[in-house]
Amino acid sequence: MLMNTHEARLDALRKELKARGLDGFVIPISDEHMSEYVGAYAQRLEWLTGFGGSAGTAVVLADATLAPAAAMFVDGRYTLQVRDQVDGRLYAYENVPATSPAAWLSDHAPKGAKIGYDAWLHGSKWAEGVERILAAKGGALVAVEGNPVDAVWEDQPLPSAAPALVHPDQFTGEVSEAKRAAVSEWLTAKRLDATVVTALDSIAWLLNIRGTDVERTPVALSYVIARADGTADLFIAGEKVTDELKRHLGNAVTIRERSAFAGALRELAGKRVAVDPERAVSAIFEELRKAGATLVEERDPTVLPKAIKNPVEQAGHRAAQGRDAAAVTRFLHWLSVEAPKGEVTELSAAAKLQDFRSVDPTLRDLSFDTISGAGPNGASPHYRVSEETNRALEPNSVYLVDSGGQYLDGTTDITRTVWVGPGEPFAEVKDRFTRVLKGHIALALAIFPKGTVGGQLDVLARHALWQVGLDYAHGTGHGVGSFLSVHEGPQRIGKSAGGQAGTDQALLPGMFLSNEPGYYKTGEYGIRIENLILVEPREIAGSDGEYYGFETLTHVPIERRLVDTALLTAEEIAWWNAYHARVLEIVAPQLEGEALAWLEVQCAAL
Amino acid sequence: MLMNTHEARLDALRKELKARGLDGFVIPISDEHMSEYVGAYAQRLEWLTGFGGSAGTAVVLADATLAPAAAMFVDGRYTLQVRDQVDGRLYAYENVPATSPAAWLSDHAPKGAKIGYDAWLHGSKWAEGVERILAAKGGALVAVEGNPVDAVWEDQPLPSAAPALVHPDQFTGEVSEAKRAAVSEWLTAKRLDATVVTALDSIAWLLNIRGTDVERTPVALSYVIARADGTADLFIAGEKVTDELKRHLGNAVTIRERSAFAGALRELAGKRVAVDPERAVSAIFEELRKAGATLVEERDPTVLPKAIKNPVEQAGHRAAQGRDAAAVTRFLHWLSVEAPKGEVTELSAAAKLQDFRSVDPTLRDLSFDTISGAGPNGASPHYRVSEETNRALEPNSVYLVDSGGQYLDGTTDITRTVWVGPGEPFAEVKDRFTRVLKGHIALALAIFPKGTVGGQLDVLARHALWQVGLDYAHGTGHGVGSFLSVHEGPQRIGKSAGGQAGTDQALLPGMFLSNEPGYYKTGEYGIRIENLILVEPREIAGSDGEYYGFETLTHVPIERRLVDTALLTAEEIAWWNAYHARVLEIVAPQLEGEALAWLEVQCAAL
Repeated sequence: MLMNTHEARLDALRKELKARGLDGFVIPISDEHMSEYVGAYAQRLEWLTGFGGSAGTAVVLADATLAPAAAMFVDGRYTLQVRDQVDGRLYAYENVPATSPAAWLSDHAPKGAKIGYDAWLHGSKWAEGVERILAAKGGALVAVEGNPVDAVWEDQPLPSAAPALVHPDQFTGEVSEAKRAAVSEWLTAKRLDATVVTALDSIAWLLNIRGTDVERTPVALSYVIARADGTADLFIAGEKVTDELKRHLGNAVTIRERSAFAGALRELAGKRVAVDPERAVSAIFEELRKAGATLVEERDPTVLPKAIKNPVEQAGHRAAQGRDAAAVTRFLHWLSVEAPKGEVTELSAAAKLQDFRSVDPTLRDLSFDTISGAGPNGASPHYRVSEETNRALEPNSVYLVDSGGQYLDGTTDITRTVWVGPGEPFAEVKDRFTRVLKGHIALALAIFPKGTVGGQLDVLARHALWQVGLDYAHGTGHGVGSFLSVHEGPQRIGKSAGGQAGTDQALLPGMFLSNEPGYYKTGEYGIRIENLILVEPREIAGSDGEYYGFETLTHVPIERRLVDTALLTAEEIAWWNAYHARVLEIVAPQLEGEALAWLEVQCAAL
Repeated sequence: MLMNTHEARLDALRKELKARGLDGFVIPISDEHMSEYVGAYAQRLEWLTGFGGSAGTAVVLADATLAPAAAMFVDGRYTLQVRDQVDGRLYAYENVPATSPAAWLSDHAPKGAKIGYDAWLHGSKWAEGVERILAAKGGALVAVEGNPVDAVWEDQPLPSAAPALVHPDQFTGEVSEAKRAAVSEWLTAKRLDATVVTALDSIAWLLNIRGTDVERTPVALSYVIARADGTADLFIAGEKVTDELKRHLGNAVTIRERSAFAGALRELAGKRVAVDPERAVSAIFEELRKAGATLVEERDPTVLPKAIKNPVEQAGHRAAQGRDAAAVTRFLHWLSVEAPKGEVTELSAAAKLQDFRSVDPTLRDLSFDTISGAGPNGASPHYRVSEETNRALEPNSVYLVDSGGQYLDGTTDITRTVWVGPGEPFAEVKDRFTRVLKGHIALALAIFPKGTVGGQLDVLARHALWQVGLDYAHGTGHGVGSFLSVHEGPQRIGKSAGGQAGTDQALLPGMFLSNEPGYYKTGEYGIRIENLILVEPREIAGSDGEYYGFETLTHVPIERRLVDTALLTAEEIAWWNAYHARVLEIVAPQLEGEALAWLEVQCAAL
């Protein structure tokens, strides 16, 4: 990290702000699609401040003589990392949700300040909220014309020019025409003329296209306007459009330049247009309002059908999981041999795991940055290993690895926690691991009536920990895409208290979710056991209505050395044995030699 | 039931409506305080239609030639009862929530109709919603001056003239001055001038008074306006005010006539006034708006402190529960002897139970109408026995009894389900009973972190039933008052899906709740096991924060003949044995002879 570089960049930004008559500017990690992962061109926060985490915001005041004159906002995951990477002489360190950029501006911005923001990078609710807070102090939030960071970022990468890819029907199970027809029916039923689709995974699903423009999520930078008459416009850089893509989209989808999108919003004058406030940026609302369109706030109509996987997507996912299970099992076997020697590090382990996965010709990317946490590093649920934090897996310690692959036929996500021998694990960690396992099993075995939401089931995964006064500070389950986002809405299993998005969504057959309870002891170790599960209908003789349960989709042995069988009920042991019998059935045919022998030992009945 | 009487009453009401230029009128079961139970003077729906249930609404159109010209709206509990009691030639039977008075009016009221409502009997949200629906068809909802039913109800009872009673500090644990000071602090912190308290139990708690004006809830008809300066006005009929009450209230509380309340609202011109939209009727909002007050919607500030019982209230409750347990145990012993003879009926059983309770000199009332359900009648969770529905407890059948007492020191609520011998229960009912018991125990044993809401815990009580495709269509736990309402907010354990009020309220130490899972097989039998529980802090060595659990407050044996011990875990059996050891400890000293011997058998270890 070159301090003088970041200082120079901050100076340049301040000059730009002053030239524009702005008293400050807000720099989030975001793109025009409110993506979880953003392309290199949109990594403005990292360029400006050096911060490399996945979530954070900077606020810069134009007047460098103020104290503080700038601040970096990160959550608990990045409290340490921000101090490593961001110069504390340039930026005050602030924690969310203890404070927020809006609250900080209210305290520190000069009276009557004009604070700039890029309306293409923020949601409309955020902008409205900050506007209200600034207005209360006589200030204003002002949408900029062109991002001031871009104006001073000389070697800013261009958005990816990689071609958009056709995703074949053999994987999607439903042609784009049918999906667009469903959107058109939805629009007609709601007496709407059109909808603006801006979430990149929604566009990918709707048009059966994929891309390589964003890390970890196989999407193509673009926008869609879909109309009640079944036609749609796809706004995408011309260089990304292949003849195959044109043939695939056919006549009902008009391909237009990505830069024409803002103008196209103005063509919706007088129309009733559905916009999703959770997914569309503030600028889209502004453009439509200016154009004189009637805005109707509705959830993006692709969100629910995308979450409910059809039989072809389910079959593809099972196939991908089977191959992924073999790769992860080979890795765990390798780890069982190498780790006790003391030479394996978090980085080398993650690289080895990627090697095992990369053998598969359908692997396109990892589905997220591997969380490879040895000992105390495992206690950060979202830990991201770097050269600076890299630790060796010490003998007789706990190692947590959370990883996944983007295969053409499915997106995987699995966490295993293992004991690095050669000694025996201590009693406390076995107790904690077994309680996490009990939670995992309780959720895997849950049966529940139609209409049940994720917020209702969450306690099943926490109950065994709560009974001894322990908990974990993350959700229990997130949705997962089909060769798309590893974090996909709208469903979520988590605490309903606090109102985390998605815990009030009914769980419906065909939805994928993760099942990932954990336990984290700060400074010592982290435990998480994660499989993916599928909501499926259950026929129960004599039942009083429709009931659902889960099929577990992930098949990799769970660390038996960490299980305290005395804490398990007969039903839980039966689950374990049936699960590992199935693991053996799926993975054994893909292994040979020592790895196979190791697997057989892992899968023996408890 | 005299059909011609109800026809004549309906005719009279229609004449009155026409004279007032109204095209229709809505008749709910409600009073000026939105009470769950209302006084005889407010039983307008029963007088008009003959309907004796606890929840329902009628809509009457003025033009009798319309078809339909009137309708009765009840929920699933009263589908059969309404057909028994209300003349189908006069009223169409309608079910809520399948339809609603508003939807029905929209379909059946003449175009441009003026529909009257009594703004003192409906919430403001209800009125706003209906107004919108009628306006969409060119109609209007009009607040009446004086209820038209009252105008034609010649022998309408007067509101109760019974004296308001002072509730001594030995039971309340906190003097009214302190409670009012807390309200005053709350008002000051929120920069409010005053609040209108209209819920009768809120007034009773705030002023430490009770009454006998409403069945089953020991409250006095009155209103309160409390001010930020710590003073308050109590609006109450002069005949109800004793010298003792005056002394008790002191100088800071001004006693005014109940009829002066509407006028007093107008004295709040220019003030910032807190009003609870869940508890204050529409008329109060209207009067304050007309007066030029600034309305601030806030939850009644007594609701949360009232729910959190202080140590004196907890001790009183435990004492009341101990005596109630002896009464209920005596009843269960009596039942075990008499019921197998086949002579006991639902009515005679309920009367006998009341006799056993009435021995206690502190009993003031039952806390609700006893639910005494033999065989198929038990399958209606809210069944209310009448001469018409009264059944004998048949040998070898299931009997459910849900009852409670209003004691000076506490309000009880208990359900027991027993097997009427002399034979052995059949396997299915034992399976269902044991699953309900497993749910009851899971909730009783739950430990959970601070911040947990009732909607999160609900699944624990349903899990064992869900696993075999069964559920129950009611909540799992409601709050309970201290010699006040047996159903008291704001907390509730229930499904968060569907948004039942209270399931998003954090459970706090000191709250009383019921723990009452059940199972109902239509046409055959009903099962429910209900104890009251108290949220209490739990000290857990090594815990990662504040954790809470439940103390069970109710101590009456549970029917051991209905338990299938093979379905219970060791932990569940340990709970059962510890529970019954405690029952014996509390109840045995109050019994003798055969009842004591019977109790000892019931409380032997499983």
